[in-house]
Amino acid sequence: MGFFHHKKEISVQTIRRLPQYLRIFYNLHGYGRELVSSTFLAQETQLLPIVIKKDLQAVGAPSKLRAGFKVAGTIAAIEKFLGWDNLNKAFMVGVGHLGSALLGFQGFKNHGLEIVAAFDTHPEKVSAEVNGVHVYHTAQLATIIEKLNLKIAILTVPASAAQGITDTLVNAGIKAIWNFAPVNLTVPPDVVVQKEDISAGLAELCAKLKR
Amino acid sequence: MGFFHHKKEISVQTIRRLPQYLRIFYNLHGYGRELVSSTFLAQETQLLPIVIKKDLQAVGAPSKLRAGFKVAGTIAAIEKFLGWDNLNKAFMVGVGHLGSALLGFQGFKNHGLEIVAAFDTHPEKVSAEVNGVHVYHTAQLATIIEKLNLKIAILTVPASAAQGITDTLVNAGIKAIWNFAPVNLTVPPDVVVQKEDISAGLAELCAKLKR
Repeated sequence: MGFFHHKKEISVQTIRRLPQYLRIFYNLHGYGRELVSSTFLAQETQLLPIVIKKDLQAVGAPSKLRAGFKVAGTIAAIEKFLGWDNLNKAFMVGVGHLGSALLGFQGFKNHGLEIVAAFDTHPEKVSAEVNGVHVYHTAQLATIIEKLNLKIAILTVPASAAQGITDTLVNAGIKAIWNFAPVNLTVPPDVVVQKEDISAGLAELCAKLKR
Repeated sequence: MGFFHHKKEISVQTIRRLPQYLRIFYNLHGYGRELVSSTFLAQETQLLPIVIKKDLQAVGAPSKLRAGFKVAGTIAAIEKFLGWDNLNKAFMVGVGHLGSALLGFQGFKNHGLEIVAAFDTHPEKVSAEVNGVHVYHTAQLATIIEKLNLKIAILTVPASAAQGITDTLVNAGIKAIWNFAPVNLTVPPDVVVQKEDISAGLAELCAKLKR
C-alpha cells in the first residue's frame, strides 16, 4: 500500500521514518542550524544517504545544491505532509496500564495530536484526571465526541471490548482509530484504522536473535 | 533485510505477522479445534489467503491436503521459529510510565519472555515492586545480569540516558536489546537491537487520514 503526493507514490516505510527525521530536524532547529547534509543525517539515523534523500524529496523538503536540506523548510514540509501543522483533538478509550502510559507521553502535541478526553467504565477512574486528562464514562462517548468536536480515537481497551466500542465510534462519526487492542476491527471503508502490535516488534527481535 | 530458514528467506513482514497468527491458533486450540482453513484465517486476520499460506509454510507449519493447517503443529512451528518455546529471562531498564505499562502486560510469557527484574535510578522506585517485578538500582546492572543470567534487555529510559545504559549492557554481555527510547543506539555487530517508535504508527494513521 502506498500514498500519493506530488504525483509520486510514497511508501509506508518512508512515512514511518518521517517522525525520526522530524526529531532530528527539531533538534537542529533548536541549535540554530539552517542547513544539514544527508551525510550528517545518515550518521544520526544509521540509514543510507540515498534513502534519506529520497524520503525527504518525496515530501517536498527544500534543499540547497551541495549544501543539504533546509532545516526550517523541511520541518514545515514533513509537518504539512502528515497534517501535524494543525492539532487534531484526540481521545483515549481505556485507561488501563497502556492507556495511562500513553496519556503520560509528552510528545503527542509535536505530532498533531491533542488528547483532550479519556473514557473508561471503571468507577474508580471515571471523573478522575489521569496525567491531566479528564476521564468520562464510556457511556458518554457519543455525547462528548460531538460536544468537544473530537476527531481521532486511541483505543486501549481489552480485545473483547474493542469491536463494540468501535461500532459506537463509527456511529458517532469518528474517521480515524489508532488501535492498540490485539484484535482486527471491522469498519466502513471511509474509516482508517492503524493497528499497533507490540508483539510484532518482539517477534522481529527474537527472529534476529535466533539467526 | 530478511531471515533464512528452511533454505528460504523469510521477510520481516512475515515475521511481524506471526504473533497475530499465534493468538488465533491459541484460541482455536483452546476450543479444541485440530484443523483450520486459510479461508477462516483470512476472515480473522483480514489478510489474503495466499499471504497466510506463504507465511505459515515459510515457518514449516504442518497442513493436511484440502483441510487446512494443523492447529497444534502450527503453534509449535511458530513458537520454535521465534524461540518462544523456551522462556528467555528479560529485564526492564527504566520504570517510568511506559516501563510500568510494559511490566503490566500479561502476554510476554506467551512470547518467550519472562521479565524477572527492573532497574531505575529514582529513589522512590528502587527496592519497590512494580507489577510484581523487583526494581534494582541501575548501578547494579552488571552484577544482577550475571547473577540472574539475564539475556534480553528492554530499554525504556529517556533518550539522553539510552546510549550510556547500552554501553553498560553490552559490556555485561547482553546480545539483544528491545529499544523504546527515541534514539538510535550504537552497538557491536553481534548485538541485535529492535527499535520501537510509537510515532511511526501515528505518522501512518495521519498520512492515511490526509489522503
